[in-house]
Amino acid sequence: MLGVCYYPEHWPSTWWADDARRMRALGLTHVRIGEFAWSRIEPEPGRFEWDWLDRAIAILAKAGLRIILGTPTATPPKWLVDRHADILPYDFNGRPRHFGSRRHYSFSSPVWLGETRRIVEAVAGRYGRHEAVVGWQTDNEYGCHDTVLSYGPHDLAAFRAWLRHRYQTPDALNEAWGSAFWSMEIGSFDEASLPAPAPAELAPGKLLDFRRFASDQVAAYNRMQVDIIRALSPGRFITHNFMNSFTGFDHWAVAGDLDFAAWDSYPLGNLGDDFLPEDEVVRWAATSHPDVAPFGHDVCRGLGRGRFWVMEQQPGPVNWAAWNPVPKPGMIRLFTWEALAHGAEVVSYFRWRQAPFGQEQMHAGLERPDRNLSQGGREAVLVAGEMKKIGRLPGSAPAPVALVFDYEAAWIIGIEPQGRDYSFNRIVHQWYGAARRLGLDIDVVPAGADLKPYKLVLVPCLPHVSDAAASAFENAAGTVLYGPRTGSKTRNFRIPETLPPGPLAKLLPLQIAEVASLPPGLVTAVSGRVSGKVERWREHVETKAEIVARFDDGKPAVISAGRHTYVAGWPDRELLGSLMKWVASAAGLVTLDLPEAVRLRRRGDLTFAFNYGDASWQPPVRSGFLLGGPSVGPQDVAVWE
Amino acid sequence: MLGVCYYPEHWPSTWWADDARRMRALGLTHVRIGEFAWSRIEPEPGRFEWDWLDRAIAILAKAGLRIILGTPTATPPKWLVDRHADILPYDFNGRPRHFGSRRHYSFSSPVWLGETRRIVEAVAGRYGRHEAVVGWQTDNEYGCHDTVLSYGPHDLAAFRAWLRHRYQTPDALNEAWGSAFWSMEIGSFDEASLPAPAPAELAPGKLLDFRRFASDQVAAYNRMQVDIIRALSPGRFITHNFMNSFTGFDHWAVAGDLDFAAWDSYPLGNLGDDFLPEDEVVRWAATSHPDVAPFGHDVCRGLGRGRFWVMEQQPGPVNWAAWNPVPKPGMIRLFTWEALAHGAEVVSYFRWRQAPFGQEQMHAGLERPDRNLSQGGREAVLVAGEMKKIGRLPGSAPAPVALVFDYEAAWIIGIEPQGRDYSFNRIVHQWYGAARRLGLDIDVVPAGADLKPYKLVLVPCLPHVSDAAASAFENAAGTVLYGPRTGSKTRNFRIPETLPPGPLAKLLPLQIAEVASLPPGLVTAVSGRVSGKVERWREHVETKAEIVARFDDGKPAVISAGRHTYVAGWPDRELLGSLMKWVASAAGLVTLDLPEAVRLRRRGDLTFAFNYGDASWQPPVRSGFLLGGPSVGPQDVAVWE
Amino acid sequence: MLGVCYYPEHWPSTWWADDARRMRALGLTHVRIGEFAWSRIEPEPGRFEWDWLDRAIAILAKAGLRIILGTPTATPPKWLVDRHADILPYDFNGRPRHFGSRRHYSFSSPVWLGETRRIVEAVAGRYGRHEAVVGWQTDNEYGCHDTVLSYGPHDLAAFRAWLRHRYQTPDALNEAWGSAFWSMEIGSFDEASLPAPAPAELAPGKLLDFRRFASDQVAAYNRMQVDIIRALSPGRFITHNFMNSFTGFDHWAVAGDLDFAAWDSYPLGNLGDDFLPEDEVVRWAATSHPDVAPFGHDVCRGLGRGRFWVMEQQPGPVNWAAWNPVPKPGMIRLFTWEALAHGAEVVSYFRWRQAPFGQEQMHAGLERPDRNLSQGGREAVLVAGEMKKIGRLPGSAPAPVALVFDYEAAWIIGIEPQGRDYSFNRIVHQWYGAARRLGLDIDVVPAGADLKPYKLVLVPCLPHVSDAAASAFENAAGTVLYGPRTGSKTRNFRIPETLPPGPLAKLLPLQIAEVASLPPGLVTAVSGRVSGKVERWREHVETKAEIVARFDDGKPAVISAGRHTYVAGWPDRELLGSLMKWVASAAGLVTLDLPEAVRLRRRGDLTFAFNYGDASWQPPVRSGFLLGGPSVGPQDVAVWE
Repeated sequence: MLGVCYYPEHWPSTWWADDARRMRALGLTHVRIGEFAWSRIEPEPGRFEWDWLDRAIAILAKAGLRIILGTPTATPPKWLVDRHADILPYDFNGRPRHFGSRRHYSFSSPVWLGETRRIVEAVAGRYGRHEAVVGWQTDNEYGCHDTVLSYGPHDLAAFRAWLRHRYQTPDALNEAWGSAFWSMEIGSFDEASLPAPAPAELAPGKLLDFRRFASDQVAAYNRMQVDIIRALSPGRFITHNFMNSFTGFDHWAVAGDLDFAAWDSYPLGNLGDDFLPEDEVVRWAATSHPDVAPFGHDVCRGLGRGRFWVMEQQPGPVNWAAWNPVPKPGMIRLFTWEALAHGAEVVSYFRWRQAPFGQEQMHAGLERPDRNLSQGGREAVLVAGEMKKIGRLPGSAPAPVALVFDYEAAWIIGIEPQGRDYSFNRIVHQWYGAARRLGLDIDVVPAGADLKPYKLVLVPCLPHVSDAAASAFENAAGTVLYGPRTGSKTRNFRIPETLPPGPLAKLLPLQIAEVASLPPGLVTAVSGRVSGKVERWREHVETKAEIVARFDDGKPAVISAGRHTYVAGWPDRELLGSLMKWVASAAGLVTLDLPEAVRLRRRGDLTFAFNYGDASWQPPVRSGFLLGGPSVGPQDVAVWE
Repeated sequence: MLGVCYYPEHWPSTWWADDARRMRALGLTHVRIGEFAWSRIEPEPGRFEWDWLDRAIAILAKAGLRIILGTPTATPPKWLVDRHADILPYDFNGRPRHFGSRRHYSFSSPVWLGETRRIVEAVAGRYGRHEAVVGWQTDNEYGCHDTVLSYGPHDLAAFRAWLRHRYQTPDALNEAWGSAFWSMEIGSFDEASLPAPAPAELAPGKLLDFRRFASDQVAAYNRMQVDIIRALSPGRFITHNFMNSFTGFDHWAVAGDLDFAAWDSYPLGNLGDDFLPEDEVVRWAATSHPDVAPFGHDVCRGLGRGRFWVMEQQPGPVNWAAWNPVPKPGMIRLFTWEALAHGAEVVSYFRWRQAPFGQEQMHAGLERPDRNLSQGGREAVLVAGEMKKIGRLPGSAPAPVALVFDYEAAWIIGIEPQGRDYSFNRIVHQWYGAARRLGLDIDVVPAGADLKPYKLVLVPCLPHVSDAAASAFENAAGTVLYGPRTGSKTRNFRIPETLPPGPLAKLLPLQIAEVASLPPGLVTAVSGRVSGKVERWREHVETKAEIVARFDDGKPAVISAGRHTYVAGWPDRELLGSLMKWVASAAGLVTLDLPEAVRLRRRGDLTFAFNYGDASWQPPVRSGFLLGGPSVGPQDVAVWE
Repeated sequence: MLGVCYYPEHWPSTWWADDARRMRALGLTHVRIGEFAWSRIEPEPGRFEWDWLDRAIAILAKAGLRIILGTPTATPPKWLVDRHADILPYDFNGRPRHFGSRRHYSFSSPVWLGETRRIVEAVAGRYGRHEAVVGWQTDNEYGCHDTVLSYGPHDLAAFRAWLRHRYQTPDALNEAWGSAFWSMEIGSFDEASLPAPAPAELAPGKLLDFRRFASDQVAAYNRMQVDIIRALSPGRFITHNFMNSFTGFDHWAVAGDLDFAAWDSYPLGNLGDDFLPEDEVVRWAATSHPDVAPFGHDVCRGLGRGRFWVMEQQPGPVNWAAWNPVPKPGMIRLFTWEALAHGAEVVSYFRWRQAPFGQEQMHAGLERPDRNLSQGGREAVLVAGEMKKIGRLPGSAPAPVALVFDYEAAWIIGIEPQGRDYSFNRIVHQWYGAARRLGLDIDVVPAGADLKPYKLVLVPCLPHVSDAAASAFENAAGTVLYGPRTGSKTRNFRIPETLPPGPLAKLLPLQIAEVASLPPGLVTAVSGRVSGKVERWREHVETKAEIVARFDDGKPAVISAGRHTYVAGWPDRELLGSLMKWVASAAGLVTLDLPEAVRLRRRGDLTFAFNYGDASWQPPVRSGFLLGGPSVGPQDVAVWE
């Protein structure tokens, strides 16, 4: 199904009915509203103006649209900030981040938590049982604009309480963080401080705990909203619109409290989020790269335990990337079909009409400011028609491949890259893409998830292997491929006593004696049953296990023990391709050699093909097409059974 | 005529008479003094020491030099800052910008306004009627070191008053800024805030108003000084030394209160001000680029309504650019002649003698610290001799080409570049240069100026087309060429309801449906009656007007309607050259194909040629030379009738 | 002899005896402890816990290790910071630099000076006469993490006192700094301010004095510690571990109070410290560059008046550079021998065992966290064996070449680079390397040192030539080669009245009329008796002295007068090589043409050769080898008589 994000408060009320009618005509069934409207709902402290919203909801409902209401907590109004400046978040330098945009609140401010409760109760109380309201979105894009971490007085108080709860005694904290190093010991929890600018780097154990604390605060905040809505709006679903490529809090934890997950898919806007080298960003600038949005879909399907929405779908050029090209004709249609292919239940475009004012005035909508359809709007019409023709899509079956994706891993790598260009997003993207180039479908799973259903498990980067994760690897039924640094840290950000890969040594009898980060230009050749190079990172391994490939100095580069394989470096494109093919074959998977610009995805008995490139592509079948045909043109889609 | 900037307070008083004598001997007639001397004039609060300045003025006057006095407000002394720290400007982070250099004041500090009045009255009162004092310079380089914008408590109060005056009601402000977006509405003007660091970007309407407010403060401040001087120094001219390439306030507004405009011309120092790509900066490093200083001259002549001075002329290497090469031999002479060719009444070198101390000790003067002439000084001698030989220069006639130059346009582009490299200075420089490569003289005019006198009008970048501007375009008698984004914003930084180009659609029946900013490397070919490529920016146009050229996907790239032509993208060098030739020819202008390094400029019946390059150039005439001859060598000048 | 840095507080006390035993077995004789252990020594204000340290010292002593104790002042504990936040240093923006790492103190805080006295007296009182304690290290790496400069209230008070003492009257200060420029005069010392963010650049004279002040504070602080230790620990040596490539304070002044100098040698870690262009950094990433560590050794031998230690020797990959490769096999051995060849009395590895926690957990040690030897540890074993075989090394004789190295020069260039890439470290490194490529040994000496013993003196960069320095140059017995900008500033950061080279004009009859900084890509050819190019910097010289080589416009590039030669620009590699060969030959030195990766060093009658490269090298002798033989392989060492 298709939906759209709509802001009645942006338009004359006389337009609303016509807008609703045209949404329906276009083929949209869902509409999200309300998530930034606090100053209109409560223009002064305690004075609520429901009338306009009552009318807007009535009009949309009357047109047959199903409504998702957003809680307006991402935009506390000016009067609230002026009365309670201590709701503001603080930056790392200890300065407030001011009013003037959005997300100007700290998750730890007691006043803010009270105000949140008040406004969510008010909105959910008024509309929770409205028949057209089918679900809720909590807040909007938690963490957007780097707002998970805050460094103000309330954050300090909450962090100290969190530490007290976690460690019970200062000595336990000192031991965990290794505070003997550089005399950093504290004598009481009142001596614990926030991360702050200091002459040299801060203790990694402390930084990791601060990330965990901040992530927990997000989860608790969301749970508070969920609890209120559950009570006041029975029978409605609750979701949140996550951001792919943002790893600032543990999405698995937040998603656990939701009915399903949603995310905001901006394939062109997100292209610069550290997935690709700069020349590739330019190359794919007008189509996006074929693994960027799909990875977000697969993460979100995982977060939603099989169910997910795209809450915001890029409908044309946006305003917030470094450069903002117009997507090539056909791409909005392709993105929509791709979301559906990966299992999205609803794809909701952001937004109905481009607002000619405010910060996002250069962000396209399905309509242009002059109320005519944009190019994206015309492609949405096309998709709606095609969807009707094809009818109900089958469910997504579990994929044969699992990729383990862990937010704590991103924090650890961010805290200790050890080499300037060691990027969590980059290595995950490369591994994901290498598997998809073989035509494989992938499920994204959390560390510790049951891996028995999978023929192949990819672990591109998991520095801390928890007990649960270790046990899941042990019980995996298929082949498991581990990337460098996996098992290199304990829970408290320490090197395992037995050296990396720590608990994995049980499965992979090897020790990492030394590690090297490699500046661009320094690479090492690898050859054996797989071949290529490592770049960025190389490990020096001592092992008696089977050597699959060696570095050019003869030391082990790829090591195998039974179903488990470890690669002791950051594989370049060639080595990664070679390795992926080797493990897929070991796992008994049938693979294809897809062109760089083409990807496949199954949903039930349907196979979808997506061509991001400039050359046509011939699918391996000649008939059975529900969409497209035996030649998939540039920026085109095909579906066959 | 030639002049010089002189700082008697830097030198033993025993040197003054000899300095004055040698200035005259060199051929200088004007001398600017006093603009940084506050701490010498008033060493303690209220205690004035006039004696030294009386003597310095007497000595200069006696030598026959005409004196321009600068008000010393750019350098408030330490005792004033210590007593009134609230005169300091504040940075965007809300921190004071401290004493220790210059321009450490806020245009909105009430104490500062009072102190300004006091010191200007004191200086103008004492010397306003001195016979040798022929004119005044207010302050020094308003805005230098990015000092137009200030974010302190006094700025907030003044901004609120300005908003109250402009909008009358909070609702009008909310409507103008589109504050419904992200709940940014305010309920009273006391809720209005300064731009400040916030999680995400700030409202563009607010940012634009803050730029307008700050620009108005500069104009009001200058007017206050002008009013005092007019009263106390009748019959003397008042000017200000503007900076080319600085667009932080509306120079047209400030210049309106002056008798004529002046500017500070640093052709090498300004080379890095975003006019040119980096490799071009290196290529022209020791000569400057042939369009950099001339554009400043043409702007300044426009600001001065036909009359202008170069108040500071670079005399050799400076100290403040990223790199500071020595100008090639001949360039100081060339720069001087070029200023005269563009209509300068006086070219005043900065400075008489290189000071061997202080922040600018590596900045050359006509004399070296050892009191011998520098290379620049020797070239000034040469020019003085040549000027005497040629005699009085004729006046500048209006040029056949007008270039519309608008400071608000620079602010809009700065607030919303939409693509990281969309630079106002760059696009204006390229258009200006492309016309000058055709041998054309150019007048720079404000938006809304009468365009009837011009055969060709260039509008490289004017996002907000005011009513006055729209009417001027309508009444233009010649050909008008509009660059991309022209007409793309309303007065309140909104997209026009009818889409861009807004009010221009009357003249150019087209609509901009979508726009794309293009990362470096992404270009699109254009062909038709003109050809080349667009880079950085491309627009998707719907039109039934005449298509002059198309993009490679067949969409319109250059569109014409009668005398009006619009280019829907950022033309690369080839397309811009092709386009400029096409419109010039349509305008009935005779053009040349000048080499990259050669430019012409007429003044009355004289034609001046300037060769910045390494190869000699043959002018189109063989005789009639007042300077140079039928071959213009590298770094040389020719003048013919 | 060999030593190691050890942190008993990081390990179970049950491990200590075994660690000590194994240190001895490995061949180590010295161990440094204690320098970060304050929070363990004094866990609460006034409550000292000596027991653990008593035991650790006893165990190490019993194993036969000689102990160097570090005063723990680099890491004030949290309870102290919480009680006295005013001990914190402040950054240039006036914000405190917080607890959480190390070096969080200001050298000017009165409370901090008292606390330092207290803890140093406590530690030196308890262990000063312990028989196993052979010496002391004051604090740790003064200035590390940019901690020399602090901008807080106590720093202001101390700076004002320092200025009052230096200048006596405000007028003398105004005269020295050229405060007439931009009205920066002060009327009393209470008006003097710290450097702080201001609209434009600050006065260079003030900035230089602030650097001098801050350097004096470091020296005074160190002297305070030295005085306490001398009183309480008679007969023990006192040293400090300096950092090569850090020029933030005057090491000559601090070293004057020590018995000898020590430094921390991180050949790979320091590779990025502005010695080399980026591509060279990559090229030498896994071996270091052959002049990086040796230069540090030669500086340190100079600081120690002939005696020095390497207090910390890199033992493998570190954690703190942008990238951290593993040194190639053999390099730890090579680095150790190289330190010895340059005269080190003890080479002490940092650290015994890699700590699996804290900020430096990715920093290798001789042991890995699992208590096995690392690659570096195994190479240390090798060196220890070789040392035993060779026996006592002869003393270092004075070298034939002196290089004048001045910290004030680094400050002056830092304050006024005039061209963005004018780097003090870079020019010194290039000159040093060019001489070592000729096989020459070099002594590093302070400006003003007696130069009579040297055949060749190199002065790559000495802007301020003091009276003492001028007199030393005049009395030099050998050839002296001066780099550009030498003599370009007076003591008060002014241009000499007679123009540069100021006092050197007596020896070199020339004047620098103008100087040009050249952006990358702008070079000028030089030819004559030496040839090549200048890059980055070129001077325009007027002289009647002998012209050794000219720029391509005929102006003088290299000028000689008797034994003194001046090069009027930044020589590129070719010109520098050509010049160095020419002056060495003039100085009567016999030179070699060593490959880029090979260097020699003599110690008494022994010659050491070091091969950093990938190709073997044949020494000029065929026999007499104490180590290695007639072919020195990659990453190998040879020693012959």
